[in-house]
Amino acid sequence: MARTIAIYDSTLRDGAQAQGISFSLEDKLKIVRVLDEMGVAYIEAGNPGSNPKDLEFFHDVPALGLRNSRLVAFGATRRKNLQAEDDQNLLALAQANVPAAAVFGKTWDFHVTDILKATLDQNLEMIADTVVFLKKAGKEVIFDAEHFFDGWKANPDYAMSALDAAAASGADSIALCDTNGGAFSDEVAAATTLVLARFPKIPIGIHTHNDGGMAVANAIASVEAGASQVQGTWIGFGERCGNANLSTVIANLQIKRGMDCIPADRLPELTGSARFIAEIANVTLDEFMPYVGANSFSHKGGMHVDAVQKSTRSFEHISPESVGNQRNFLLSEVAGRSALLPRIKKIAPHLDKDSPETQRIIDRVKAMEHDGYELEGADATLELIVRKELGKYRPFFVLEAFRIIGEEPTKDAGLSAAAMVTVSVDGRREVTAAEGNGPVNAMDFAIRKALEIFYPELKSVRLIDYKVRVLNGRDASAARVRVLIESSDGNETWSTVGVSSDIIDASRSALVDSLEYKLLKNIEGKLKVFF
Amino acid sequence: MARTIAIYDSTLRDGAQAQGISFSLEDKLKIVRVLDEMGVAYIEAGNPGSNPKDLEFFHDVPALGLRNSRLVAFGATRRKNLQAEDDQNLLALAQANVPAAAVFGKTWDFHVTDILKATLDQNLEMIADTVVFLKKAGKEVIFDAEHFFDGWKANPDYAMSALDAAAASGADSIALCDTNGGAFSDEVAAATTLVLARFPKIPIGIHTHNDGGMAVANAIASVEAGASQVQGTWIGFGERCGNANLSTVIANLQIKRGMDCIPADRLPELTGSARFIAEIANVTLDEFMPYVGANSFSHKGGMHVDAVQKSTRSFEHISPESVGNQRNFLLSEVAGRSALLPRIKKIAPHLDKDSPETQRIIDRVKAMEHDGYELEGADATLELIVRKELGKYRPFFVLEAFRIIGEEPTKDAGLSAAAMVTVSVDGRREVTAAEGNGPVNAMDFAIRKALEIFYPELKSVRLIDYKVRVLNGRDASAARVRVLIESSDGNETWSTVGVSSDIIDASRSALVDSLEYKLLKNIEGKLKVFF
Repeated sequence: MARTIAIYDSTLRDGAQAQGISFSLEDKLKIVRVLDEMGVAYIEAGNPGSNPKDLEFFHDVPALGLRNSRLVAFGATRRKNLQAEDDQNLLALAQANVPAAAVFGKTWDFHVTDILKATLDQNLEMIADTVVFLKKAGKEVIFDAEHFFDGWKANPDYAMSALDAAAASGADSIALCDTNGGAFSDEVAAATTLVLARFPKIPIGIHTHNDGGMAVANAIASVEAGASQVQGTWIGFGERCGNANLSTVIANLQIKRGMDCIPADRLPELTGSARFIAEIANVTLDEFMPYVGANSFSHKGGMHVDAVQKSTRSFEHISPESVGNQRNFLLSEVAGRSALLPRIKKIAPHLDKDSPETQRIIDRVKAMEHDGYELEGADATLELIVRKELGKYRPFFVLEAFRIIGEEPTKDAGLSAAAMVTVSVDGRREVTAAEGNGPVNAMDFAIRKALEIFYPELKSVRLIDYKVRVLNGRDASAARVRVLIESSDGNETWSTVGVSSDIIDASRSALVDSLEYKLLKNIEGKLKVFF
Repeated sequence: MARTIAIYDSTLRDGAQAQGISFSLEDKLKIVRVLDEMGVAYIEAGNPGSNPKDLEFFHDVPALGLRNSRLVAFGATRRKNLQAEDDQNLLALAQANVPAAAVFGKTWDFHVTDILKATLDQNLEMIADTVVFLKKAGKEVIFDAEHFFDGWKANPDYAMSALDAAAASGADSIALCDTNGGAFSDEVAAATTLVLARFPKIPIGIHTHNDGGMAVANAIASVEAGASQVQGTWIGFGERCGNANLSTVIANLQIKRGMDCIPADRLPELTGSARFIAEIANVTLDEFMPYVGANSFSHKGGMHVDAVQKSTRSFEHISPESVGNQRNFLLSEVAGRSALLPRIKKIAPHLDKDSPETQRIIDRVKAMEHDGYELEGADATLELIVRKELGKYRPFFVLEAFRIIGEEPTKDAGLSAAAMVTVSVDGRREVTAAEGNGPVNAMDFAIRKALEIFYPELKSVRLIDYKVRVLNGRDASAARVRVLIESSDGNETWSTVGVSSDIIDASRSALVDSLEYKLLKNIEGKLKVFF
């Protein structure tokens, strides 16, 4: 029978400790919903004792009516000079309207004496009292053994006695935490084995951090040693270098080890859920992320592209579709025809590699790459080129003229640039102007201001990344520049590219492509067929 | 005695296979220089047979005169229907002006039959012939056993016989490649152990990919099983999900396992080198990256911050200084007193690390880095800052005002921008204007046109590189941008940086620094002492 692994997501608690992450109440509720849909066993959702926003969350969250996940409130063991029932943080945990509580307690002697400034025995009493108190309050109790691996290396007897205190007091499970993130897999496996031998009846969890770049491998080493609960965050962000990336852990264990982590029919939602959580957290998903990143199944070298077309498993460890991702063939000087064909067929399924249209598109792409376009990173521009060559394209608007003025010292408002633009849509002209921080920003604002009159759907488009690369070193300020823009409408992101000797002109080209692509996508979505 | 691990960097070859990465010849030479300074054993620098740009590189690179690293040219085993001496790719490898060649050969039977369409015996002959040919050409030969772990799982006897063919033909080392990146650490360790038992006298290397999020852990599992060479890329980028991140591997092995990977005095340069390579590759360094990311030693939770103030090891697995990083996110390597001091002493030899001036400079640099300056890559701007703080600076000119106009459609001359500038030198004002390709180019021309009246030596200055980086992704066209300019006067090159929400303003700042630096350098050269 397949082993079942309880997935324990702490995006809303340990993830919120990450640099730059801050969730609103509404953000937290959205993330709980998607994690529940993905079928995770536990959602650690915050610390009601430390944070009024979390307290409010624990009041609102039961209304969601979760189907798969148990919600967990997180906090520390009682303070050393208080009874459990007098500790406000513990009371908040007991009163949180959720079935489970995770409490972290010290297992590293150095932390007890030098940070808590308590005696070793006092700490054991704090652990025991806390677990007893929360069990009395009717909670499922997860004991998070903080710094367990460091503690075990420093003083194994004491680290184990801390687990004893939790187990004897009725903890439902014990999670071994590599709090500082510096453990090696062999240490994690060895310690897990010993803990399982000592507590054969208590489910053991693993909570790893990525300070040595090994959070995922350490979690897996612990599972292979017998741990049955994995704590982490959905896309890996967390304090310092982050936590074990659950999207990676799940795919590794479920696809390659046949363990049950989430319902099998949820696996193809892995990529979508990762993107959703990145969007809510307002972070850019690392496109090199295993399984769910846009580059995970991208092939660039000509030899690799050829081989994947002969057999996908030649350079893919799993099928991208199994996790809801997709294969990409990147265009480089060496790849050519075999990489372009799948994109052409998406738009014109009847074409094959010997069609004259295919040759024309390849010639056009090569000419553009020779001019400095980097089309592998700009799928939206590439799609527009293919459509243009196939005659399956009409422009939604024409940017007829623009003028940009920048000056220093700046005027009172502090905005250093202004743009005037003239656009036309089906023969109707609109002239407008906008100010901005710099010429690209001003032009972006002005073009959209003019176009939103005709296409209100452009209001949802945001530029989320903007990159500039100088193409040749000589006479750099007059060199050709390549501008790569990434845009999003909240649901989807797309990339466009422009090349020119003028950064404004290159930006204009990428910006126009981005808006054209959004309008094209919108029509396709509405009409199902475009031509 | 400490074990020695040969670090083998493939940033310029496997790294260049990453989505969005494209190196110029000058980029490649810069990266070779920094890797050599960091003391890596091998630098795999490209594939001379597949790529004219790489061929040119292998012609230019010996002029660098490396002190620590051996350069490696990379290619495949001979084609199945050619003699080794008739295979152009192999000839290019043999003729590359570097001491070592890495050749990849098939070890997975499925790849031989289904991708190469060769017989299993033919492949063994291809491996043997290739190694013999390159040994005869006087090369150190590294045999890259492509897909070794997949091959070993599918047909262990055949996988081993492929290694036999390489070993018997005189390969100097054999690298086991997890080409598809899907292996687990226990498999990697087990296979490494068997290979070492079979080839006790040949150094064994490990080449891992990150498709399962375990590239670093897999490399380390192999080293712990006895491998003595680690292949990867300096900051982990590579095809699909990337390669083993060498900055992480080195820190893990050297700090925690006491192995010798790079000279001990280079370890504090780890963070700076990672940032430098990210800058050259024009990628944003992942700030959550272990050891070298800005967040790696940043503490957010109040309890953690308190604990770290009591004892840093409470929530830090190593000391950030040991890898040139800093506690608290905003400080990068250069801000460290020890990194700044040599630059300060160059200008003011009497100062030491406890001088109040030193503290003032560090505070200023920290504040600028907080604002988005990346001073590590901009030595000229940094020198100007140090001089300003020490009072050893007077401006050579003042750029009093400028106005820039860009428009499309362009005028007859095809130049899309014009700039008017006002500069003053010792109270004498000069107003002038120039046209250019784009606003930065026009401004560059106009400022120099005005200044050359006062300082004819500026005629020799050319901008040789110009890079733009957006600092925060949201609302990208209004985000802060960092402009890095590299300038040359034919004898020397120097780099300057500017940061602003306006790309023109950031460019203006970097441009002014560049010209100031040239004038400063000129006076120093003439007078030998400046103050």
